[in-house]
Order: sequence, then structure tokens, then C-alpha cells
Amino acid sequence: MENYIKVYEATRKKLKAYQYFGWLMSWDQETEAPELSVVHRTKQYQVLAEEMYMLNADPKYVEAIEKLYEMKDQLDPDFRVEIKNEYKDLRIVKKVPKDELIAYQVLTSQASQIWAKAKNEDNFEAFAPTLEKIVEFSKKLVKYLETDELKGYDILLDMFEEGFGVKEYDLFFNTLKDELVPFVLEVTKTKERFPRRLTKSVWPIDKQKEFSDYLLDVFDYDRKRGILKESAHPFTSGVSTSDTRITTHYHEDNPVSAIFSTIHEMGHGIYELQCDPKYDDTFLHGGTSLGIHESQSRMAENMLGRSLAFWSVHYPKLKELFPRQLRDIPVEMWVRFINKAERSLIRIEADELTYSLHIMVRYEIEKLLISGKLKVRDLPKKWKTLMGQYVGIKPKTDKEGVLQDIHWSGGMIGYFPTYALGSAYAAQIYESMNLDFNIDDALRNNDIKKINAWNKEHIHQFARTKTPKEILMIATGKEFNPQYYVNYLKKKFNK
Amino acid sequence: MENYIKVYEATRKKLKAYQYFGWLMSWDQETEAPELSVVHRTKQYQVLAEEMYMLNADPKYVEAIEKLYEMKDQLDPDFRVEIKNEYKDLRIVKKVPKDELIAYQVLTSQASQIWAKAKNEDNFEAFAPTLEKIVEFSKKLVKYLETDELKGYDILLDMFEEGFGVKEYDLFFNTLKDELVPFVLEVTKTKERFPRRLTKSVWPIDKQKEFSDYLLDVFDYDRKRGILKESAHPFTSGVSTSDTRITTHYHEDNPVSAIFSTIHEMGHGIYELQCDPKYDDTFLHGGTSLGIHESQSRMAENMLGRSLAFWSVHYPKLKELFPRQLRDIPVEMWVRFINKAERSLIRIEADELTYSLHIMVRYEIEKLLISGKLKVRDLPKKWKTLMGQYVGIKPKTDKEGVLQDIHWSGGMIGYFPTYALGSAYAAQIYESMNLDFNIDDALRNNDIKKINAWNKEHIHQFARTKTPKEILMIATGKEFNPQYYVNYLKKKFNK
Repeated sequence: MENYIKVYEATRKKLKAYQYFGWLMSWDQETEAPELSVVHRTKQYQVLAEEMYMLNADPKYVEAIEKLYEMKDQLDPDFRVEIKNEYKDLRIVKKVPKDELIAYQVLTSQASQIWAKAKNEDNFEAFAPTLEKIVEFSKKLVKYLETDELKGYDILLDMFEEGFGVKEYDLFFNTLKDELVPFVLEVTKTKERFPRRLTKSVWPIDKQKEFSDYLLDVFDYDRKRGILKESAHPFTSGVSTSDTRITTHYHEDNPVSAIFSTIHEMGHGIYELQCDPKYDDTFLHGGTSLGIHESQSRMAENMLGRSLAFWSVHYPKLKELFPRQLRDIPVEMWVRFINKAERSLIRIEADELTYSLHIMVRYEIEKLLISGKLKVRDLPKKWKTLMGQYVGIKPKTDKEGVLQDIHWSGGMIGYFPTYALGSAYAAQIYESMNLDFNIDDALRNNDIKKINAWNKEHIHQFARTKTPKEILMIATGKEFNPQYYVNYLKKKFNK
Repeated sequence: MENYIKVYEATRKKLKAYQYFGWLMSWDQETEAPELSVVHRTKQYQVLAEEMYMLNADPKYVEAIEKLYEMKDQLDPDFRVEIKNEYKDLRIVKKVPKDELIAYQVLTSQASQIWAKAKNEDNFEAFAPTLEKIVEFSKKLVKYLETDELKGYDILLDMFEEGFGVKEYDLFFNTLKDELVPFVLEVTKTKERFPRRLTKSVWPIDKQKEFSDYLLDVFDYDRKRGILKESAHPFTSGVSTSDTRITTHYHEDNPVSAIFSTIHEMGHGIYELQCDPKYDDTFLHGGTSLGIHESQSRMAENMLGRSLAFWSVHYPKLKELFPRQLRDIPVEMWVRFINKAERSLIRIEADELTYSLHIMVRYEIEKLLISGKLKVRDLPKKWKTLMGQYVGIKPKTDKEGVLQDIHWSGGMIGYFPTYALGSAYAAQIYESMNLDFNIDDALRNNDIKKINAWNKEHIHQFARTKTPKEILMIATGKEFNPQYYVNYLKKKFNK
């Protein structure tokens, strides 16, 4: 056993280093690398992908994992989880031909540029052939990895959220379809009109930056272990508990986007920063799943950040930075303004109420694509139909429709549903935390440290040693139940 | 031969990728990485260093280089130069015991912190034992690498500037000693007093940034292939002709530092960007030597950037950004202000006239250290004596004296002289360019593209395929002659 552990740890050390290089290349690319650097970087990325593949497929490493998996009952519990995960991941190198896998990685590393151009030109045809290849590979992947227990789209879903397949998601989305869709269509029939100062002002970017910087302190985001930067699309990029970086974006005509992007990404970032540091050099560092990750960002953004309790403390600072724009706007109106719900086309700009319905469109489409019941070329039409049914509005262009998201260009099929799941997890977790202490009181006392500490104890510290279902049980004492989410939304938006 | 080339190219491809990862880690570390990220990054860096050593020392790779070197006459001329260089570099892995080399790398990777602390506390004794070890290793290195042609300090000097040893540098520095030192001591006896608006104003950093950004366009720095960022010490970091980044730094009490840091680094950056892109994937990309590199930055900074011709075009823009600070300051006074020369203690803040004399102090000391004629403990005293002789001013503290530079802590002995050489090269190159077209006219026409094109044709395109001496012959038709430099300085400062 000793020897297998030695082999495993030696290879892991290299793989962690290569993951780090890949992490840094991607951070650089998304935040500042000059446009034409892509050609040179792609070549280095290919070497990295090849080296990582060779390490992952190294027979000695594979043997070490298999032997350790056989002896898993003798392993320390954390290490046992790590070996189980790695054993599961072996599927890929064992069952997928190397050439196909590498060709696919190269394809997806270049597809985002093709997608961006197609989106920019509102030309679905220009992206369709690439997307077809990606869907074809995903279908082949599913065939390679099929087992008695797991088949079809379930395999992809399980990759992003362990233990969640079509059965679980159908249950979840059917609840939304039955209860949320009619509610949303009703609530969004009318909307409040806000003063032009709120809707038509210019909000200087340097002041917005100052407020984002202020928010870092409000959420106790450790500047010695992270930075806030700008990127086209906000994201969190963590590599260890000593280095977890976030980005936001600023729009002069709208301060809301930057504020809630910053808070959202801090939710993700604090999760990664509060993992137990003992996992930093293992494959157990980081959030356990996309859904649990999203529960942390959505809770920060929507449940904490969009609450009256939160703004009762921080609105004065915002008014200080934007005295003209917020003149005579009471905090209550500001809170209604940042919580306005409406039928909209773009997922990343969607409000809290309608967000998960945008996801439902993507879930239905992915399910049809992988089962072969929908062709890539018929996507735009299907998109419009589903948007009409679930969100009550249809896009006129593909740019505002099926081309809006980058995810599929990166091969991420099965990913979207976790976004909706995250919001639903968050509602259930919020309820549980609120039984331990009054969250509104903590917000009114500007004590987000208390909330961070609760999340650390019940969720973050475990990093990847628990499954999403286990985390939910630890944090709430219950299995996943979407009713918390529906109740939360109905209570909040039923005015 | 085919097979050796294949082996060589396969390993080179990996080494280029690892160099890229190291390049990116270092860029990140110097410009934005959070403070505590160092621990995690250091571990990944160790993996990288080990992998690179293994690749460089791989017997198959070594054999390929040796065999190709034997057949060098049959190789394509560019490839021949590359193989010659790599063959020369083999010395290290072949002659220096691995353990000693790695122990030394560990020593120098830790020494900068010891140096920084010692400098901060003005305590030479705290750094002396570390510096002694570094000097001892350098002496051993010299013994390991000694050949019939190259011995002692020459070996170190040649590592940083091929073909330049004590003989060449003595000739150069003796010219400076004979002609420049007395001139400088005379010229710096008196100095012009400038209005308080120039010396005591606040220069808002956002306006300074705007001017640096303006300068990028003036020098035609390609934003699609590079970026300008901030760092504690300005530097250029190029990895290919599609990605060459520069940094600058801003001080609110002084706009001159940012302006000339930006221009200096653009000089370096344009060199790397204008290499022939066909070398990007080889070891021939980049500047051929530190001295030639510095000639490009110094020419941009001092000969172009500090000229009246340059400011006759760009001073209005500066006045537009700083109307209050530059009120009633004619362009001629501004140009005198940015060219003021004085006896000073700190090399990196030294003016154009005295700069090379600061270097001469370091050259004399290194020569004595490596020959064993000077002990590390006697360094502070020697430093003061030489500063008095060459610059006409003696530091009261070691912090402002022998401890001021980081270089020796990184083991860089033999590096400093290239800084002075660069300025001298620049003067000779400028003369040659000025025979082809009138440089002042080009500056007055805001046509720096013409200057860039000349440098590309005569210097940049060759990347590392020519030695410094060959470059100088191509660009000026003459061997190196320090008299151009002395004449240039005397003409400029003799007013």
C-alpha cells in the first residue's frame, strides 16, 4: 500500500502543478492577455493537455489508483473519498480513445472564439457545425461511459452534480413548471415605474469600483488571498485557499450589474477560501459541486445582497458615492428597484424570479439533443418556443436567443441545470441557517462574518470530501426539496 | 540527422511550454498575485524547475544536441546558431554537479528575501554570509566551466554578453574613466533651479496613466500583442511576437518616472515584438543579448524620449493633462528639467549622464571579487571609495550603497556591465541611423514608425540569430567604439 500511495502522490504533485499552470493561463486569458496572444498560448496549452493526459493515463498511476481503490476500507476517510473520485475519473482514460479526447479538447479550446464571432454577427449557421461536433462527441462520450446504472444524459448531468440525473431534475423542474411558471406569468404582467434618475443616470465607473472595493470589506473577503479584477463576464477562479480571485464588470448606465456580480462572485470565492487548507495539495480542494457552489453565490447575491436588511446598513455608503442619482430615493424603493422581476431574454441579466426558467429552457434542449430527438439546426426554433412557454417572451434574434451563452462552445453540456439547482439549494440552506440565528439581524449588524462562519462550518470546510447530497444533509438535516425555493420566491415576489 | 532533429524538436516543444508557464507565473507574481499566494505557487514552481532540469539533462536530448553540433555545417544557418547556443548551454548540466547546481538555485531563490531584509535594516552583516556563498559558488562555477579560451570573470561576463570579457570592458570603462569622469565632476558642480510648480506639484495618477496610454500610440506599441500594466519595478516580459507585456509605475509627486519608465520598457518591448515570428517556437526568439536589449530601451528613453524634437510634438498633450503644474513652463525648460544631471547615490534613479559611472563601480567590484582580490566583508568600504572617485559622492549608509541592488542576491554577477554597454551601443546605433535619415525630423513629424522600422530591419528581425558584435556590425558597419557614447554625452550636457 505504501508504495501505491507514493506513486499516487508523486503523480498528483505533478498534476496539481499542471492544473495550476492551466488555471493561470485561463485567468490571464480572461482578464488581460492581448488579443493575438491566443495562437502562441494555444500551442503551450496543447503541450499541457498532452502531458496531463500522459500522467493521468500512466499505467503505474492507474494501477496505484485501482489498487488503492481495492483497499479503500483501510484508507483514511478523506483519502478514501479522493481515491473514489479518482477511480471514477479513470473511466475517461480507460474508455475514451486518447486521440478523440485530445482532438475534442483542442476543438473546445478554439470553439469559444467561433461562438463569440457567430454571436457577434448573429449568425447561428456559423456556429452550428462546431456545435454539432461538440454534441456528437458528447453522445459518443455517453456511449463510452455507459454502465448499467448510468446512461445517456444522466452521465453528463452526474459529471457536474453527483447523484443528480434526469429523474431528480425532472422532479425539480416539474415543480417549477407547475408552480412557478404560472406565478411568474401572473406577477410579471405589470411592473413598477421607477424615476428616471434610477433608470437613465450615468453612474461613473470609478465610483462603482469604489463601491465594489467597499463590498470586499463588508463580506470580509481576504485581500491577502484574493484579488478583484475586471473581465467581460464575471467569474471566480480559485486554485488554493491562499489564492482565489474574482472578477466583476462595470457598466456606466447601470450600477446594479457590478454590485451583484461582485457579491455573487464573492459567494463563490469565500467558499473556496474557507475550505480546509489541508486539502490544498490534494484533489479534494474546492467546492464539492457546481450546484453547491452556486448555492453560495446565489445566497450571497439574492438572499443577503438584495435584502432590505443589507441595504439598511449599506445604502448610505451608496448614496454618498451617487448623491445625485439617488437623491430622494428611499432605501425601500432602491430595494424594490434591485428586485424588479420581468420577462427578459438574457439569462445572465435575468432577475431572481425568472432565472431558473431560463435554465429550464436549456435543460429541455440538452435532454433532447443528447437523446437525438433534436437536431442542432433546429435549435433556434425550439429555443423560441420554450422561451415563450416558460418565460413568456420570445427572442427576435439568435444573438439574444440560442447564441447568448458560451457554455456549449466549451463542451459543457449538463452544466446549466446546476445553476437552477443552486438557487433551490440556497433557499433550503437559508431556512436552516435562519433557525440557528436570525439572518436579517446579522445583516443589520453588518456581521457577515457570522454568516461566513456558519457556511464554513456546515459547507465550506469539507471541500470535496462530501457529495452534494451529504452537504445538504449536514447543512439542513433534510434531503433536497424544491418546495423551499418555490415558497421563498412566492413569498418574496407576492406583493 | 532526421532523427536527432525530431528528438531535439520534441523536447524543445516541451521546454518552450514550461518556459511559458514560468514566464506567466513570474508576470503574475510581479503584477497582481495576492501576497499569500506565494506558498502555493512556490510548490508548483519547484515541480516546474525539476521537470525542466530533467528535460535539459535527458541523455537523448543531450545526445541529439551533440550529434547535431558535430554535423552543424549541414544545418540550415538559423538552426545552426540555435544548436551552437544549446551546445554551449550544455556545459552547465555536463560540468556542474547536479546537487551543487540545485543547492545554488535554492540558495539564490531564498537570498532575495535575506537581501531585502538586510537592505531594509541597513545591515550589511546580515547579507554578507549569503553573498559570500554566492560568490564562492560563482568562483567554483568559473572553475568548472574554464576552457583554454575563457577563464575567470570572463566566463560570467560572456554569459550575459557573448564576446565581451574583461579585455573589452576594460577598454570601454577606461575610456569612461579617462574622458567621462572628469567631465561629469565638472558639469555637476552647479545645477539649475526649477520652479516649485515643477518640483513640488501633485501630478494626479489618472492623468499620468492617460499620458502613458497616449505614449503607447506615439510609439506604435501594438495593443493586440501587448499590454501596459503596473508593478513595483517597471519591466518588460515578452514570450513571443504575439505577447510582449510591459509595466510602469506611477508616483504622485513626480511624473517623470512614469513617462520614462513607460518609454524605456517600450524600447525593450518593441524589440521583442519586431523579431521575426518564425523564431517564436524556437530558442532563437527574443533579444540577442542584454546589452543590445538595453541599447533599444535606452535609445527610446534618452535619445528619443528626452529630446527637444520629441517634446516639441508631445508637450502640448502633457500641458493639456497638467495645465496648472506646467503653467508658464516653456518646452525648453521642461526638456532641461527631464535632462538634469547630478551626483546621486541610487543607480535606478541616476540620470543619463552619470548612469554608466554607477555601473563602473559594480564592474570593478565584481572583477575584484571573482579574482579573489576583494573579500565580501570589505565591500562596503570599497563601494564608498569607488563612488567617491567615479560619481563624486559617497553614501552614508549601505542601504544607499552596496545593498541597493537586488542582482547579486539572485546570483547575477557579470550582469551589471551590460547596462552601461547598452547606452554606449545606443549612441553608436543612433549615429548610424541618423546617417540614413534625420532622426529629429522623424520625431518632429511624430513618425516613430520610421525609427521602429529601421531598428526592425537592422536589429530586431534577427532575434537571437546574430551575436551582439554581429548586430553592431550590421547596424553600424563598425566594431564597438565607446567614443560615440562619450561624444554624445559631452555634446548633450556641455551647455
